[in-house]
Amino acid sequence: MPDRLPVARIRHARRTPGGVPRLPWRRIVNPFTPLEILSADQVEAIHGAALTILRDIGVQVLGAGALDRFEAARAHVEREGGARGPAGQVRLDPAQVEELVSRAPSRFQLHARNPERGLVFGDRHLVIGAVGGPAFVTDLDRGRRAGNAADFDAYVRVIGSLDIIHQEGGGPLEPTDLPVETRHLDMYRTLATLLDKSWQCLAFGRTVVEDAADVACITRGIDRDTLVREPSLMTIVNSNSPLRLDGPMSDGLIAMATLGQPVVATPFTLAGAMTPVTLAGALAQQHAEALFMVALAQLVRPGTPMVYGGFTSNVDMRTGSPAFGTPEYVKAAIATGQLARRVGLPHRSSNVTGAAVMDAQAAYESEMSIWGSVMGGASLLYQGAGWLEGGLTASFEKLILDAELLQQIAEVLTPIVVSDAELGLDAIAEVGPGGHFFGTAHTLARFETAFYQPMLSDWRNFETWQEDGARTATERANGIWKQLLAEYEPPPLDSGRAEALDAFVDRRKREITASAG
Amino acid sequence: MPDRLPVARIRHARRTPGGVPRLPWRRIVNPFTPLEILSADQVEAIHGAALTILRDIGVQVLGAGALDRFEAARAHVEREGGARGPAGQVRLDPAQVEELVSRAPSRFQLHARNPERGLVFGDRHLVIGAVGGPAFVTDLDRGRRAGNAADFDAYVRVIGSLDIIHQEGGGPLEPTDLPVETRHLDMYRTLATLLDKSWQCLAFGRTVVEDAADVACITRGIDRDTLVREPSLMTIVNSNSPLRLDGPMSDGLIAMATLGQPVVATPFTLAGAMTPVTLAGALAQQHAEALFMVALAQLVRPGTPMVYGGFTSNVDMRTGSPAFGTPEYVKAAIATGQLARRVGLPHRSSNVTGAAVMDAQAAYESEMSIWGSVMGGASLLYQGAGWLEGGLTASFEKLILDAELLQQIAEVLTPIVVSDAELGLDAIAEVGPGGHFFGTAHTLARFETAFYQPMLSDWRNFETWQEDGARTATERANGIWKQLLAEYEPPPLDSGRAEALDAFVDRRKREITASAG
Repeated sequence: MPDRLPVARIRHARRTPGGVPRLPWRRIVNPFTPLEILSADQVEAIHGAALTILRDIGVQVLGAGALDRFEAARAHVEREGGARGPAGQVRLDPAQVEELVSRAPSRFQLHARNPERGLVFGDRHLVIGAVGGPAFVTDLDRGRRAGNAADFDAYVRVIGSLDIIHQEGGGPLEPTDLPVETRHLDMYRTLATLLDKSWQCLAFGRTVVEDAADVACITRGIDRDTLVREPSLMTIVNSNSPLRLDGPMSDGLIAMATLGQPVVATPFTLAGAMTPVTLAGALAQQHAEALFMVALAQLVRPGTPMVYGGFTSNVDMRTGSPAFGTPEYVKAAIATGQLARRVGLPHRSSNVTGAAVMDAQAAYESEMSIWGSVMGGASLLYQGAGWLEGGLTASFEKLILDAELLQQIAEVLTPIVVSDAELGLDAIAEVGPGGHFFGTAHTLARFETAFYQPMLSDWRNFETWQEDGARTATERANGIWKQLLAEYEPPPLDSGRAEALDAFVDRRKREITASAG
Repeated sequence: MPDRLPVARIRHARRTPGGVPRLPWRRIVNPFTPLEILSADQVEAIHGAALTILRDIGVQVLGAGALDRFEAARAHVEREGGARGPAGQVRLDPAQVEELVSRAPSRFQLHARNPERGLVFGDRHLVIGAVGGPAFVTDLDRGRRAGNAADFDAYVRVIGSLDIIHQEGGGPLEPTDLPVETRHLDMYRTLATLLDKSWQCLAFGRTVVEDAADVACITRGIDRDTLVREPSLMTIVNSNSPLRLDGPMSDGLIAMATLGQPVVATPFTLAGAMTPVTLAGALAQQHAEALFMVALAQLVRPGTPMVYGGFTSNVDMRTGSPAFGTPEYVKAAIATGQLARRVGLPHRSSNVTGAAVMDAQAAYESEMSIWGSVMGGASLLYQGAGWLEGGLTASFEKLILDAELLQQIAEVLTPIVVSDAELGLDAIAEVGPGGHFFGTAHTLARFETAFYQPMLSDWRNFETWQEDGARTATERANGIWKQLLAEYEPPPLDSGRAEALDAFVDRRKREITASAG
């Protein structure tokens, strides 16, 4: 490079001196026409196969509430252990499925504590959610360990510092050192106070949903009626593939729908294990299970906002190990977009990897997932940042890597401006053959904001990089999350609401402990 | 995972016992409609701006041969230093540019020593080329060092062992320990004997092109007339951006066109340094320079096959360092596809990274490049495997990483089969709710070939991975290239041709040494 420029202010920087460059909060709208990997006939064949599955095989439901709803809607319900039994097989006619699914909106909004952090699902909006659910946590310094409250708190703070992440994922790791019966209350309090953006609640049963609704109402300063009109919570409901919906999940789904809060209905369809080994079979089963959950929510409350959850991947058939970010995953993600659009629903995809550690594999499997999801037109990229090791572990360094990947894809989705000024023919004429553009007025007017400024990439030459410690991207990510954590200042919460939140959590803990004791 | 299968034969394996799983040789046809990041109006604006650049500013040409050709075609040529001077400014009328560019075919074939390794450029074919040109070579054991003949030989063998790489890239590293005047002959002999697939020749001047033509004729057993009818060589010609074509490059371009051999006309347009800091300006200048080189080749020999080379990236405006695999790179790659299709040419893109070492950054910048290129409908993914450190270094481990990424993208580009058998409703009915599919007849009939089998990814659980040495992807890649190198058997070359090749190389070395002495 013949010339150097003086160090410039970094683009979009939300900076304290020495701060980490980050993109500011923005809603993302995907300008690209979604890819199609299935023909229209193939989409119809898979949709038809799913309806056949629901008509002829059905779904096993564990949960009296769900079975009651289906019976009331005159579905074909075979209860095990008598007329009021908590288990049964539910079969649905195709016309009923189509009618129920059509009740869910193709687009909806989700509110956050900070009104500016509200989200849109559908219509090419892309919402990025953080990792949710891992049992373990890891970082370069301390290695892999059981999830715990201190790491939960720290991890949520780093999520809060990254504006590219639109939504927290329902607890980035399990705080296993907290009592299990009241753990959700501590998690919710941490999420609701450390973040002013959207956070997901848990879904295993009615209690964790109801408590989340109260926390959302308190921190937003609204009542339950307003909550129903202004959805403020979201959760993932997984079917227990193949073709089973378990009791806590069906109860959680019903509780969410009762409150009009959106649910991401996600079959856990690992091809070769929980579905046929073929992608067509896996997609047909995914479609059936997703439509089934959407149908149940619509029986509870017509118009409940739903996200069609796609999570089809494959297992390593030599070992049975789950695999993520594979070519099959990408193809399923693209096909899922087509199937979700077929039924008029926003859809969820994910940023996943099977890597055991944050290395090149973690990066390429995540990129495969992200690109497949975005090219497929995903509405929600869940597990978008931090997921490692097939979802068993939340990694602090991976959180930084993913934020970098997501910022980059967000930049790819911004348009190219073409105008006389941007074409710059005057500058080209001024520089002429063999010159360079560093010092031109055209460059000087634009260079501070012309290009995306990464937080993790290191572009220095080899010698400089080596002299500065020869640190890999993983090692650099370690320094970045520590800096973000040290600098994070939680968004202020009105003191009255904070006190009300504490009082609520304390009361609920006493109630739960008393009823358990 | 509830169950395990016995270790299966690995899909597509071209195996010696213990061999590395790899995809077999295949032509790749991209089924996806190329992305569009520019509107039709924007494409026209950039195309028009490029024509304006060529009309009003022009390109500085160093090279009497090229200037003579332009003068003979009645272009506007201002020669420096008199009527026969070797430098001058060339301006072209838009209509002449359009007419000349229209002479180049939209699709062509390239022949290889092995007839089954022939290639197609255009019509959604995707050709993957290896790294070309680095001055350094690196691996985990020996670190970064100057390119040398022994590493050249070893690197070419690993390229030969990877069928996902369709074409060698013109010397994966510079063998700096060989005499510079005759180095190209040693390189060509190594490429032509160790590989039976397509390899690129060098482009700096007539001699290296003519010698390559002889090597191609000898090893294919054809004469020069057949070579012209059956193009068998390809090379990259770079303009010296902004708006300059140097002497060796213009001579090499003319020599290739004279022989009817395809040229990849590639401006080296780093936005902010060699072009305006805006993407629109960089693309306009890239388009002008690419069309200029295409026009020159068509003046030499109408119908010479050409590939439109896109290599627009950006520099880090804080330091001037070049950056690769950035969001801007991706957007330029997609736009380049639109510009190339506008003029009816196949186009080249690249797999690039600015990382100093094979780490997560190298992986994500490469994935960004690959996805941007493939989604943009690239005909040739040059620098597809092995490129590190902004092209300064060929990495053995990166070669394996890239082969993995490319195999995965090739699998993404294969269609999903949807049929009654693939939908597998019988299997879904047989397994029923809550079961698993490992043992079904539907699975057993397909599990060996159902999914892509990676060479580099490790999906074992954390404990098993840790007990087996906790090796990162980079460390595993180190073992893989060594195994491939140890097992590689070069494709046999007819002994008469091999002797003729040796005799040719010896004779040419004597001639060159004598004329230099």
